[in-house]
Amino acid sequence: MSQKLIQTEIQSTTTNSNRNGFIVFTAESIIRNKRDGHELSKEEIDFLISGYSQGNIPDYQMSAWLMAVYYKGMNPRETAHLTMAMVRSGEQLDLSSIPGIKVDKHSTGGVGDKITLALAALVAAAGVKVAKMSGRGLGHTGGTIDKLDALGLSTDLSPERFIELVNRTGIAVMGQTADLAPADKKLYALRDVTGTVESIPLIASSIMSKKIFAGADKIVLDVKTGSGAFMKTEKDAVELAEAMVAIGKEVGREVVAIITSMEQPLGYAVGNANEVMEAIETLRKNGPADLTELCLTLGSHMVVLAGKANTEAEARAILERCIEDGSALGKLKEFITNQHGISDAILDLTLLPQAAQVVPVFAGKSGYVQAIDAEAVGHCAMLLGAGRETKEDEIDHAVGITLTKKIGDQVAADAPIATLYVNNTEKVEDVKRMLTDAYTIGEERIAPPELIRRVV
Amino acid sequence: MSQKLIQTEIQSTTTNSNRNGFIVFTAESIIRNKRDGHELSKEEIDFLISGYSQGNIPDYQMSAWLMAVYYKGMNPRETAHLTMAMVRSGEQLDLSSIPGIKVDKHSTGGVGDKITLALAALVAAAGVKVAKMSGRGLGHTGGTIDKLDALGLSTDLSPERFIELVNRTGIAVMGQTADLAPADKKLYALRDVTGTVESIPLIASSIMSKKIFAGADKIVLDVKTGSGAFMKTEKDAVELAEAMVAIGKEVGREVVAIITSMEQPLGYAVGNANEVMEAIETLRKNGPADLTELCLTLGSHMVVLAGKANTEAEARAILERCIEDGSALGKLKEFITNQHGISDAILDLTLLPQAAQVVPVFAGKSGYVQAIDAEAVGHCAMLLGAGRETKEDEIDHAVGITLTKKIGDQVAADAPIATLYVNNTEKVEDVKRMLTDAYTIGEERIAPPELIRRVV
Repeated sequence: MSQKLIQTEIQSTTTNSNRNGFIVFTAESIIRNKRDGHELSKEEIDFLISGYSQGNIPDYQMSAWLMAVYYKGMNPRETAHLTMAMVRSGEQLDLSSIPGIKVDKHSTGGVGDKITLALAALVAAAGVKVAKMSGRGLGHTGGTIDKLDALGLSTDLSPERFIELVNRTGIAVMGQTADLAPADKKLYALRDVTGTVESIPLIASSIMSKKIFAGADKIVLDVKTGSGAFMKTEKDAVELAEAMVAIGKEVGREVVAIITSMEQPLGYAVGNANEVMEAIETLRKNGPADLTELCLTLGSHMVVLAGKANTEAEARAILERCIEDGSALGKLKEFITNQHGISDAILDLTLLPQAAQVVPVFAGKSGYVQAIDAEAVGHCAMLLGAGRETKEDEIDHAVGITLTKKIGDQVAADAPIATLYVNNTEKVEDVKRMLTDAYTIGEERIAPPELIRRVV
Repeated sequence: MSQKLIQTEIQSTTTNSNRNGFIVFTAESIIRNKRDGHELSKEEIDFLISGYSQGNIPDYQMSAWLMAVYYKGMNPRETAHLTMAMVRSGEQLDLSSIPGIKVDKHSTGGVGDKITLALAALVAAAGVKVAKMSGRGLGHTGGTIDKLDALGLSTDLSPERFIELVNRTGIAVMGQTADLAPADKKLYALRDVTGTVESIPLIASSIMSKKIFAGADKIVLDVKTGSGAFMKTEKDAVELAEAMVAIGKEVGREVVAIITSMEQPLGYAVGNANEVMEAIETLRKNGPADLTELCLTLGSHMVVLAGKANTEAEARAILERCIEDGSALGKLKEFITNQHGISDAILDLTLLPQAAQVVPVFAGKSGYVQAIDAEAVGHCAMLLGAGRETKEDEIDHAVGITLTKKIGDQVAADAPIATLYVNNTEKVEDVKRMLTDAYTIGEERIAPPELIRRVV
């Protein structure tokens, strides 16, 4: 029985019968099967997702199913079926005219995570094809596209121009014209209001569907763990990573997942223009140690997956050379030029959007930084205008927070722990107080948290 | 903080905040609380049910919550809050002008369960006030109102007339003008398509809300168990009974639940007119033993709850006397006369609707009846026109099935096991075959199942 025929049949009916040899499902029978802990078949999952994205299966049946999944979970086979059903829910861009292996990277999200810009240029310099579709952010700071906006880049590329740039220069970033994997978007919105977000198989399939939809052959995942991450414990982060690696195995996409610490913001900058500066500084050999290390770790896995090196050590040496000899910075300049951005900002950071005021924040007491509440720092940046509370909010690319002190650093009561870049002073006093509260300062000197935890 | 104020506040917002000292919830936070196994407060349950019945909380949040309840259950306090929230969702009829204790009876539904008519007249004869609101049936045979239709009774009474009849004669049955407990109806329809029907606290609160809404002070429950019942095992039936007794305790309504067998149809008749005949015969001392026994058992509990006797034995003696001396039959006649039905049918059963054809069904083999698939018998009656497959279907009151043989009876291959009363012959051959298949006949004589299992 061909897949095509099943698809046709299930779209034409919502009743459960067995006519002409076709298997026909109902949403209710699929809910019950999952409720009772049975493994769902590919056909059941396809029926559910295609029916839901076409509006034939209502939200109220989907949310009951999601809650059953919350409790009963899904095995790797089911999770892979769900992932691919979501991939098929939208019209994919045909990237077959880009030769070679397309490696993508995804981070599960943290505060101050400006890595994409530096990493994309770095691995492109090492010969990895970077054909990236990105979105705008919602939350503490902007997404990759918002950061490129701060550089004046145009990401409104035609598919032809996008493919041409990747083929010619090895790197291009395109704004999402439509939603990646529309069924995923619809499901995510429903999960958000029905208490069904925190489900490993649902999170894993959501991330993987977007990456595969965007054309990735191989994927490097940066799964954050710690107080500033969605996965608070390393155990949960590992479980999520394993679920995504398992999906990759099922659907023939090699996946490497790195568990990394998000016990404090990555690097020092939290905002947009200031994060871009930090990314540029990283390719200029002046980046923060943690950001540089994460770029090299994720990058070396990408280089190996792309077949440009045999071992991570070899790949790492290639990447270090690309920073050392300026080729990574050159690739970034080429990328910015291609997409009509302020490429001179690479040499002169003052060309980036500048805030009207620079406001220091003090610790108020002396000692050692023992903890930084990354989520609170992110929230402060959003209050200054660096992020969006709702989809309609406008981002101010110039504003943000650059930390001066991180975990393990010694602070004096009268020395700044952070600098605010401010255009609208309305919330500055609140932000100063909240930022001071986000720091835990004590007598004892503690070691900074280890950044790279393990590879799954 | 007054209940009224909370109600007002929660209706005016869907965001979670704590302003002016009011407690404000969101549907999502309530879903999460239940999902994580926490006990929900009265305020949370009221918010959910009032929001849902007013259309402020969408189906998709409610179905996620229902699935969480399916897995996590609800304790007696929560189940009682849910029950009363559903009771408050509709406009109740004010029965305060009927003095005395109002005792109602509810059966969880079985095949051939014509007990209401006989029981109502019987306990009314014993001085119990019967102020009953009833509905039409969906499924194998009609509901109580459909059976009264077969007697030509008008149940379209004004509230004033209903109350006057109860006060003057002790018995009246009124068709539901609107839905009993509208939130329950809306919830039930949602459960039906989201795999969340089979939840003891949801079933218990649904039944109890309808009874309390209809004005019952005390309630006798007939919880059916066995192959022909919704609760297939005695364990499940007891659990449901205990949940309803617990709700009663929480909300100050005394509840007695009797677990009874539904391993085969109750009595012999499955239909409408034929079930009415059997109910009349029961009050004429010619009823089937099981039906008579169930009337006396349920009735004696009702009489005790109504304060008309001190013990069940005493109550049973009163009821036996009411049958013996014809006062129960007289009360039935008075009831039918009051509501303009064919009261002479009590003495002359041929005045009831008669089918055009009487078709015998044979066993096809000799032996003893070892089992009767009650659900299959009910389905056969529906196919003949005695029940409704959809709400729009018209019932034919004259048609149905009257069994000749029940479990433990000896049958000969050429003697009928049942009689069909038929107007439309289209499905007769199918029904005959299905009915024969519904009987298990074997060599060994087995004892009929015990009817009354236990009192909870």
